[in-house]
Amino acid sequence: MRRLRWQVVAVATVGLALVLEALPSALLWLRAWRLRRQRRPQREVLFFPSQVTCTEALLQAADAGPSAPLTGCGCSLPHTESSLSRLLRALLAARASLELCLFAFSSPQLGRAVQLLHQRGVRVRVITDCDYMALNGSQIGLLRKAGIQVRHDQDLGYMHHKFAVVDRKVLITGSLNWTTQAIQNNRENVLIMEDADYVRLFLGEFERIWDEFNPTKYTFFPQKKRGH
Amino acid sequence: MRRLRWQVVAVATVGLALVLEALPSALLWLRAWRLRRQRRPQREVLFFPSQVTCTEALLQAADAGPSAPLTGCGCSLPHTESSLSRLLRALLAARASLELCLFAFSSPQLGRAVQLLHQRGVRVRVITDCDYMALNGSQIGLLRKAGIQVRHDQDLGYMHHKFAVVDRKVLITGSLNWTTQAIQNNRENVLIMEDADYVRLFLGEFERIWDEFNPTKYTFFPQKKRGH
Repeated sequence: MRRLRWQVVAVATVGLALVLEALPSALLWLRAWRLRRQRRPQREVLFFPSQVTCTEALLQAADAGPSAPLTGCGCSLPHTESSLSRLLRALLAARASLELCLFAFSSPQLGRAVQLLHQRGVRVRVITDCDYMALNGSQIGLLRKAGIQVRHDQDLGYMHHKFAVVDRKVLITGSLNWTTQAIQNNRENVLIMEDADYVRLFLGEFERIWDEFNPTKYTFFPQKKRGH
Repeated sequence: MRRLRWQVVAVATVGLALVLEALPSALLWLRAWRLRRQRRPQREVLFFPSQVTCTEALLQAADAGPSAPLTGCGCSLPHTESSLSRLLRALLAARASLELCLFAFSSPQLGRAVQLLHQRGVRVRVITDCDYMALNGSQIGLLRKAGIQVRHDQDLGYMHHKFAVVDRKVLITGSLNWTTQAIQNNRENVLIMEDADYVRLFLGEFERIWDEFNPTKYTFFPQKKRGH
């Protein structure tokens, strides 16, 4: 009788110990499996000048939707990836919101991409620099005509940022002004970073400037203000 | 006799099971302890315009060494941290090498910091833009006079990067040209990132440009070339 009790106790203890032993390993395995399933966050560096390639197919696909058949573009440009096409892809991934904070914006391809997003229902907001807004070839007038909200400084200093935030999730920032001159001729860099910390800080900067550049605060006619 | 053997087997099994159970937890604890001991990699975002503060103490300390007593600066500027002082700190941390790839460089404080590093034996290399190199107040001439290697483009496009790599470990990049105008008046951003992937990519870009801008390849006098 005593021997049987010993055996029961021993078997029960071993069983319990084995379960306890296996538990942490099982939890670790579960965590590793979950991590493997998670997509790696986007991290990309683009260097410019960009090779001049055809971006028609990319913009047409964004316009017609992913299921539409692509019509072949007959132009003589290479139909390969380039820094510009990667930048376009990162922008066109937007589904909900796009904040743009750009010193100069005159690239027709990037302008078309932003208009497509607006038409698709993405909430687009643009902050730009007062001095560069009205330059020949600027996209800002076209964006405004399309109904996109634009705000600008009225300071002596430049609004010199060149960043975008896609879906409050991906930060696009660097040295590149969004002009064809810069894209095709300059040495430039653009970082594409899916990074919650950086996105939070840059969105904070965007909202500060957006609020500060509220048109109700513009004082283009200070003499009028003084008059009243 | 048989009962004793059962007892020994039971106690040994339980002991082994307990050790096996504790092992993963102990390993996890050891890993957590190691991670806690590891310094978190530097990740900082600086926004500009920077508050105008006194950077004398910072530069003097860098000049005299960390053990030298700080002489109080009697100027009327605030003696607090600012975006400029943080950028200076990130640069002055260099011990072995500094790569600078800058469109425009005229800030006297940043120029002094780079000269201090050069005097301290840090290997400094500078790439800049041909058009902005000779502007009034440019630091490039002073850096060259101090014996720092400078290379520049001779293209039509701009060398528009604004990045630095400290000790092949920390990338400093953003929209900021290193000018007092930009530091004090413009909306700008600078990322300071201790990130091996980004450092590798930007060092690759630096070395490509450094090699391409080798003075032996300059063709300032194409008519001479044609003549021979």
